[in-house]
Amino acid sequence: MSLPASVKLVEVGARDGLQNEAQPVSSADKIRLIDDLSIAGVGYVEVGSFVSPKWVPQMAGSQDVFAGIQRRAGTTYAALTPNLKGFELALQAGADEVAVFAAASEGFSQRNINCSIRESIQRFEPVMSAAAEAGVRVRGYVSCVLGCPYDGEIAASQVANVARDLHAMGCYEISLGDTIGTGTPGATRNLFETVAQHIPRDQLAGHFHDTYGQALANIYAGLLEGIQVFDSSVAGLGGCPYAKGATGNVATEDVLYLLNGLGIHTGIDLDALIQAGNRISALLNRPSGSRVARARSSQLD
Amino acid sequence: MSLPASVKLVEVGARDGLQNEAQPVSSADKIRLIDDLSIAGVGYVEVGSFVSPKWVPQMAGSQDVFAGIQRRAGTTYAALTPNLKGFELALQAGADEVAVFAAASEGFSQRNINCSIRESIQRFEPVMSAAAEAGVRVRGYVSCVLGCPYDGEIAASQVANVARDLHAMGCYEISLGDTIGTGTPGATRNLFETVAQHIPRDQLAGHFHDTYGQALANIYAGLLEGIQVFDSSVAGLGGCPYAKGATGNVATEDVLYLLNGLGIHTGIDLDALIQAGNRISALLNRPSGSRVARARSSQLD
Repeated sequence: MSLPASVKLVEVGARDGLQNEAQPVSSADKIRLIDDLSIAGVGYVEVGSFVSPKWVPQMAGSQDVFAGIQRRAGTTYAALTPNLKGFELALQAGADEVAVFAAASEGFSQRNINCSIRESIQRFEPVMSAAAEAGVRVRGYVSCVLGCPYDGEIAASQVANVARDLHAMGCYEISLGDTIGTGTPGATRNLFETVAQHIPRDQLAGHFHDTYGQALANIYAGLLEGIQVFDSSVAGLGGCPYAKGATGNVATEDVLYLLNGLGIHTGIDLDALIQAGNRISALLNRPSGSRVARARSSQLD
Repeated sequence: MSLPASVKLVEVGARDGLQNEAQPVSSADKIRLIDDLSIAGVGYVEVGSFVSPKWVPQMAGSQDVFAGIQRRAGTTYAALTPNLKGFELALQAGADEVAVFAAASEGFSQRNINCSIRESIQRFEPVMSAAAEAGVRVRGYVSCVLGCPYDGEIAASQVANVARDLHAMGCYEISLGDTIGTGTPGATRNLFETVAQHIPRDQLAGHFHDTYGQALANIYAGLLEGIQVFDSSVAGLGGCPYAKGATGNVATEDVLYLLNGLGIHTGIDLDALIQAGNRISALLNRPSGSRVARARSSQLD
């Protein structure tokens, strides 16, 4: 097994992360965060989402955030767009790419978006058509790929079916999300092997939560499976919505430290990334969720 | 690469862990912790160390702790014994096994024990002879195997030399310790491959610190290299003496969760282990250092 020479990190802290933080963050502070990230060399940033502010009040200012950021050449700025209205707003705001999402678990789909997996995927069809027409690439997220808070274990074949549907609709990359962080490396390998029977490995991404401390081991297992794209959240922004006070998204700093140690290129500067994470953590009045950031800030010398 | 069917976890929380906690813990509370651990099925517990109380005041009561524990069949109770006097006291106290230690780095050896690596190993010769005579097995620890706070990077060949010396002296198992937690899985694989050229893999153990969040990824890399023994500390007891406020020893709960997920047998009950870790964490008035324990205690349902 040979490791990939380079990896793309998809930074979800400003969207997935801040959306799950209890404390609201102003558009100005989000802009600062995103600019800090792009200056650190992050090549892909989820900027916000265009959903009803009734559902996700933390994302109300996504238009302002897009308008305020300093666009850096080489960085892709993306938005989550669950419907056609959202897609049109994202396009107006200047999103480079958009993303849609489905659950691998019926229980999660029903409770999270009030419809079956199949219905949720059908609802994205207008977005996919409009995106194709506008020449905008669409990324697909699948949640609960290694376990569901309602349905428990999820078969890899079921994940493969959902991933295949999103891929067949036109998603250029499918991010497989361990939403509750219960996965371990053996299950991760099995998952990627199963899904890769239907979708090329270079169109798959891993999205791991560190709730049970397993995220980096799972990412390492993914790298050994030839996966080259991973989602992460600077400073571990977001916590875990299913276990109050516990860790959620794996911290980008920790993933980058792993990749640097393995000699895998990302284009991101660790020190600048840690600074970006520490700044937003200070603003949220909480310690960084990154162990690397905490170790670096607390060195005795 | 096939994973081992079973793994021995060496529980170092009561010794290595508590020794590095700022708050002193009474002998009665240490006894309770060790009994909790053996009831949970932990098969190997480091009970204490027989060093001068001038150096390590937290270990002053090791004799009382040995006298107070309820010995469980199938559990090995061990002690750290840096010299002959300590070895004799450990034997009187009823230690089943003892351990000695050396650094892989000259800088660490000089600053930590005031002598060269070679001198430190020679000083253990009387312990090794007495142990051989008494029929007591001796475990060897090597510290700083993936980096040193003073010397920086450490060559795997240098670690192999120190490990080989300890093995040649009669240590039945050599535990390779990433004392500052800077190692990543590629370096870990290289380390085990290098040392395994001199010592059989089933006589090697991994001792990983989670300071940079890499411990479980490194343990997974070790498992893939055929390593079957890992040291860990319940609730992550001990913190990191080289980075104040940062994580030190990897939490046993998190390692066990990883191993359970991989279907690897340990004989340890996760729920009972979490209870043991939560009890000592409450006593120390701090949150558990185990992500698994925190996730389990904070589940919303």
